Parts: sequence; structure tokens; C-alpha cells
Amino acid sequence: MYDLIILGGGPAGYNAAERAGHAGLKTVVIEERALGGVCLNEGCIPTKTLLYSAKIYDYAKHAADYGVTFGSASIDHGFVVERKNKVVKQLVSGVGAKMKKCGVEVVKATATIKERNAEGFVVVAEGKEYVGKQLLICTGSSAAIPPIDGLADSLKEGYALTNREVLDLKELPKEIVIVGGGVIGLEMASYFNSVGAKVYVVEMMNKIAGPVDGEISTMLQKEYAARGIEFILGAKVISIKDKSVTYEKDGKLSTIKSDYALVSIGRRARTQGLGCENIGLKLERGAIVTNELGKTNVPGVWAAGDVNGKSMLAHTAYREGEVCINNILGGKDRVNYAAIPSVIYTNPEVASVGETTETAKAKGLDVEIQTVTLKYSGRYIAENEHGNGVLKVLIDKKHRNIVGLHMIGSYASEIIYGAAMMVETEMRVTDIQKLVFPHPTVCEVVREAMFM
Amino acid sequence: MYDLIILGGGPAGYNAAERAGHAGLKTVVIEERALGGVCLNEGCIPTKTLLYSAKIYDYAKHAADYGVTFGSASIDHGFVVERKNKVVKQLVSGVGAKMKKCGVEVVKATATIKERNAEGFVVVAEGKEYVGKQLLICTGSSAAIPPIDGLADSLKEGYALTNREVLDLKELPKEIVIVGGGVIGLEMASYFNSVGAKVYVVEMMNKIAGPVDGEISTMLQKEYAARGIEFILGAKVISIKDKSVTYEKDGKLSTIKSDYALVSIGRRARTQGLGCENIGLKLERGAIVTNELGKTNVPGVWAAGDVNGKSMLAHTAYREGEVCINNILGGKDRVNYAAIPSVIYTNPEVASVGETTETAKAKGLDVEIQTVTLKYSGRYIAENEHGNGVLKVLIDKKHRNIVGLHMIGSYASEIIYGAAMMVETEMRVTDIQKLVFPHPTVCEVVREAMFM
Repeated sequence: MYDLIILGGGPAGYNAAERAGHAGLKTVVIEERALGGVCLNEGCIPTKTLLYSAKIYDYAKHAADYGVTFGSASIDHGFVVERKNKVVKQLVSGVGAKMKKCGVEVVKATATIKERNAEGFVVVAEGKEYVGKQLLICTGSSAAIPPIDGLADSLKEGYALTNREVLDLKELPKEIVIVGGGVIGLEMASYFNSVGAKVYVVEMMNKIAGPVDGEISTMLQKEYAARGIEFILGAKVISIKDKSVTYEKDGKLSTIKSDYALVSIGRRARTQGLGCENIGLKLERGAIVTNELGKTNVPGVWAAGDVNGKSMLAHTAYREGEVCINNILGGKDRVNYAAIPSVIYTNPEVASVGETTETAKAKGLDVEIQTVTLKYSGRYIAENEHGNGVLKVLIDKKHRNIVGLHMIGSYASEIIYGAAMMVETEMRVTDIQKLVFPHPTVCEVVREAMFM
Repeated sequence: MYDLIILGGGPAGYNAAERAGHAGLKTVVIEERALGGVCLNEGCIPTKTLLYSAKIYDYAKHAADYGVTFGSASIDHGFVVERKNKVVKQLVSGVGAKMKKCGVEVVKATATIKERNAEGFVVVAEGKEYVGKQLLICTGSSAAIPPIDGLADSLKEGYALTNREVLDLKELPKEIVIVGGGVIGLEMASYFNSVGAKVYVVEMMNKIAGPVDGEISTMLQKEYAARGIEFILGAKVISIKDKSVTYEKDGKLSTIKSDYALVSIGRRARTQGLGCENIGLKLERGAIVTNELGKTNVPGVWAAGDVNGKSMLAHTAYREGEVCINNILGGKDRVNYAAIPSVIYTNPEVASVGETTETAKAKGLDVEIQTVTLKYSGRYIAENEHGNGVLKVLIDKKHRNIVGLHMIGSYASEIIYGAAMMVETEMRVTDIQKLVFPHPTVCEVVREAMFM
């Protein structure tokens, strides 16, 4: 008998487990693959390992601009993948150690929810029954696989890849088609472009980078187009077969032959086969419906992370897992979805928080919008020959507080958390003007933007 | 007749001038050298340009760890210095353009305060008289030159260098002695170490990095000692002559022969020859005494930046200049000196804000101190083979708010502004726990530290 059964050991699950264990709840985590989930094993961390190697290789290519010269540079993709595996292994074992330290039991098995009985919720995992007073579902998401002609076979044959397989390619492709120009697609496009592959990005929308502010995503697209990535926007993929991707654009069919096709058109909550129906859990388009406390429609059952279909970001999952535990423990905690930052780890990086030009317009918000060049930063100039990054800020006209901030350029990933604090705490322009930012930094431009 | 005369066009002066110009004050800036001051011409920016080239060279040296290989790498110091000059020129002309845009007159001349008369303050610059209703002194600081045997001659002969000359060396020294292990000394030590020189750091105190938290400065010292810098602490320099530095340590004299000696033992406010006595300005150890509004003892006379002897940081100067203008315009503004971040741009970087272990102890503060490894960050592990950075946080035990935060490791320079916001706004541990930090980032460790 457990106080809490957690299904899934990704960011939502392992973080919730740690907090629950610390609080003294008798907790078990049931995970069918490795601890750390998609984020740690097939997502955030492995891609960042690859992208960092690509960044070093990019540095080498442009080093002469900064007075550093080399003999010819090369990148060993096999080594990069091996190193990625080593980094992942280290982090996965770190999560395992954490679980142990806070007294959480970990079971490697596929779990199904069987029923609710007088004692609690019954979960079956590899023939064994686990009973928990409460249940937290953190089963995450998997790559969406739409019914495109030939895709199922292409996945089997290894021509089509998802985020999982693409990270384990032993050799670099010469040509790769990336179907879907969202975060995953763009990060992999960035990697393959840096290491020398010909990259095509086929996207159904008329812009890349999904919800990212349009001005910023256009800049990112221009940057990579100049480096050789071919963007095909407003295009519908018709078939993925015969080592080719065929798409329709403006009523015309075209086909690209390539070594591989990465399918990165979105993520779907993983609830199939979980037995949600056995306890009457309410789903919407396959995702478990939760409120901002993490509660489902069944008292005692909680859900956090991608499986709730809300934000699909590891750090949101992390926070949602915590919120569930805080509420299980009798506190009152909720996620503020308005202040969740997001990052695309391309080079230059893109980072965002809060309202964009587009969402502000759609909501009819009365905002002032400032786009400021990062060249106001001496550090940016010192470190970026030919850089043209910007910072864009959205200010509520009435209350003069920051409602959105977006960046493209160096260090954006590490700067955006402060902007998220500004949005979360509803900081006003005059408050930020009084803060002292260290000099010379790129983040100084946040402050500079307050004087425009 | 001017509303405002500003003496000195460094960060305090040019920023104040911009704000004053925007506000419609008839303003003149009198600067005897280039706009931008020490920071832009001989300090922050030029060093960061050099250090960035060194960082790229460091990347090259360790690239194989990340799967990137090169033919042999080399760094062209002459090119690096030329590029530095180009970056400085671009930024200086940017400041000039700003002055023009906001209608501020700039005079290149050495200025002396002559008197106060019925109309205002009279300043003489190259024979011409300028009269201003108010006066803002931002003449900055210069390298302290103590009466060490032989130093004056060594400076003339070019063996001894200050921050000014060291940035323009045309060729790399084989051996360099750095007298003074503060920020300037350590940044230059880092550069020369990266590019292959034998570096000695001779420091009078028993620790490097001045007021930086002892645990962090010890880590930085160990890191650079392992890379070959020789640290000689608790040593008093006796003479700098005959291309040698002689010091006394534990009662014993030792001499190091070298190509150059960099003297970086501190900065002195620049008030000599300025005519402060002509209007009765109060000085203390050569610095102009101001309150936190920027006011001097003479009504209508303000001072900002290094010349007030307070913080000796460009970003403090920047803010102080603004505060003076806000108060001149009739507002009520003051600098909060408790929340000023500082950075050392070594590799790894060091960044700090607020109380250290040492200052907390000296003040008798009741604080809880957590030192957390940056290895909690997946990004840190992905990007740092052999890295051992830490983040250290000081929490007030009673109110549970953040009173100090210190880091050594990647991105520290761009992360610390958020910590400064936390200190400034007296954020509590529970507030920060509820913030969502993007994943995977190094800044996440700030949040992680709140759960220790």
C-alpha cells in the first residue's frame, strides 16, 4: 500500500517523486523505459549535447574573425552521439540516485490502471498489483504520427525518423528533410546544417517556430536560409515513401529525395493502453483534463506534464509535478501559465516569455512594442561579428508592466528566466529602470529597452 | 549658459548626458580623452574582446572532448588587439551618435572648475569658459600607482604597464607578472594564460578576487593554478625594476624576471587638477563625497561613477549618473548599493551579488548558506567536460529572503542580473520555488538551490 503511485519517471514524475519522498509520502514511480523521460533520454538533454558540439564546430568555422586560426576542422558525429549517450547515462543515474536518496521506490515496467477499490487505486505492472491512496499520472507524450501515405512503412524501414531515432544516427546524412518547423525540427535542422548536411524544412504553417513572435521567427528563418537551409512553408506533406518526401504547395506537387526524413510535427499525450477508462478519467483529444492545481475529474487522481496536453515543455512538467505534490500535501499551489519561458537552442538562440505581437493583437491588449538591437550591448558586439540579434518587449500601456519579452541572440536561453520573473511579478518599466544590470553583458539590453 | 555641465564622458557621464538631453536640459559633456571612458576604451569592453578570442582558442584546445578536431590552432595577438580597437571605435562612435541624437554638446578638452559665481558654476576648458546652473562630476578613476621602488621608471621604460598599456601590447609576452589579483589582474591573467604566456599573480592579501566570496575565489584560484598560473599570495611588492618584480613573503625576498609587469592594485578617483577646492568640494581620500542621491556638499554639484570612490564598477556609474539626473529633474531616486552585481570574466566566469559568507559573518547576519554544484544542470553537464562550477546562495534565516548569490561557471555573467533582482526585491525562497525556469539551462540551478 502506497501513499502515492506515480506513473512515468520523466520531469513531471521524477520531480514530483522527489518532493513526495522528501515529504515522507510512501511513493513508487513506475516507468517503462529509462528514468528522466523523453526530456532526458530523447529530447532536451541529448539535443543540447549535439548542439553544443555543433556550436564548437561553428566557432571553429568563424574563429578567424576573432584572430584564432586552425588547420582544417572536422566533426566526428559518431563520437558526438557516443558522448551524448554518456551524458544521458550520467544524468539518468543521477535521477536514480535522487529517487533512492529520498526513499522512492522505482519499478521498471509498463503499468495499467486496473480499478479503484475501497483501499485506493490499483495499478498493474508486469503482473504485480500496486495500490495507492492517490495516483499521479505523468506518462508524457510521444511524437505525433499522422496518417501520411507511406509514413508507417518508412518508419519501419528507417527512412522516416522521430526525435527518438534521429538522435542515434551513426552517420551523418548528406540530405535530410525535416517535416515540421517547430522547436524539435529547428534544433535538429540547426545541428545538421552546422555539421554540413543539406537540410530541408517542410512546414504546413506560413511561419516557422510555432507560437514564437513572428518578427523573431522571421529573423531566425532568414539567418538559417542564409546558411543554406531550405524552408518550404505553407506546404502539406502528401507522402513519405521511396526515400522521398512529397508535398503540395500552392496547388503544385514537389518531391525531395533524401537520406532521411525527420517527422517532428507535434507531440501527443500518452494515454493509450493506460486504462484511464477503468477509473472514469476525463480525456480531451487523448490528453488528461486537469485544472491549474493538477486535479483530474477523479478525486485522488492527478496529472502533470505533457500528458495533460497543456504546455508540452519539460520545465512546465517539472513545475506541474511539484504543484500536484504541494496540493496533495494540503497546500494551495497553482501553475501560472502566463509566465512560462521557452527556448529554441539554435545558434543564435531564441527565447520567449509572455505575450507575442500576435497573441496581444488577438486578445485585443493595449500594448506598446519595442524592438531593440542587441548591438546596444558592448559584449554582444565584442562577441558577434555580423550578429544582428534583437530583443523585443511588450509593455501594457495602462499599467506600464512587462507582458512579454522575446530575444534572438547569444545567451538568450540564460537571460529569459529574469524576464519570466518580470512577467510573473508584473514588474513595471520604472521598477526595471532602477535595477542595476552588470556591465558588459547582453542582458543589459533588457534594461536599455526600458528607456526607449 | 548651460543647464548642466558634465565633466567626463564615461559610463556615468555619457548616460547622464543622454538622460539629461532627453529631458530637455541644455547639456555639455567635457571629456579630455575618448567618449566612453575607461570602461569602453581601456577596461570592460576591450578586455572582453580579448577574452572572447581567448575563449574561442580555449574551445579549440578542448574541442576534441566534444568530437570536434582541428589541425593545430594558433592565436594572432596582433589581430586580436586590432579587432579590439575596431570594436572600441564602433562603440565610441555609437556613444557620440547618442550624444548628438539627444542634443548634447561634446567638448574634447581638459576641464578645470574655476569658481561659482552668481550665474552658476564656471568651468574652463582649453581657454574657454563654460557656465552651468548645475555641475555633474564624472571624471572616473585611474590606476593606483603606489610609491614602489623603481615603479615610476619602469612605467616610463614600458616594463611596467597599467590597464591602459597592457591592452595595446603588440606581441605576446613569454612571461608576465601581474601585481594585484583583483578583477583587472585576474582577467588579464586569464587572457595571457589562455594564449600561452607564463603568468605570475602577486597579491598582498591572502586571497584573490578581492571581496568575492572566499569559497568561490578559492575555486577560481585552484582552477587557474591547475592551468599553470602561479599565485603568490600574502606577498608585498618591494621593487619593480630591472625587468623584475621583487616581493617579500613570510620575511623572505624573491625576484621574478619577466617581459612585463602589470600593475593592477586598485583604482584612484580622478580629482587632481580638477579645481574641486575652488568651489569648496568635500573630498575623502581623493574621492568626492556624495550621498545616495548623488549630491555633494555643494548645492548644485553632483558626482557619479568611480570619482565618488564607492563602487568602482561601470554599471554602478551608469546608474549613479541616472540617479543624479532624476534628482536634478526634481524626482526622488537613489542607488541601492546592496543589489549591485559584479562579474569577473575569467573562464569559468565568476558572478556575485549581495552578501558573501565573509560580509554576512562580519555583520552578524543570521543566514543559511547553500553551496550547490552546477552539475544539477543537464546543460552544464552537456557543455562542460570536467567542469566543477557551483552556485552559492545566502538566505536570511528569519525572513527566508535571498541576501546573496554567487556563482562560478558558464553563463554566470548573464545569470546574475536575475539574482540581483531577487536581492533588490527581497524575494523569498518560496517565491522563487514558484517561478518556472527554462530547461535545460544553467540558471535552473538557482531554483534548485531553493529546495536544498
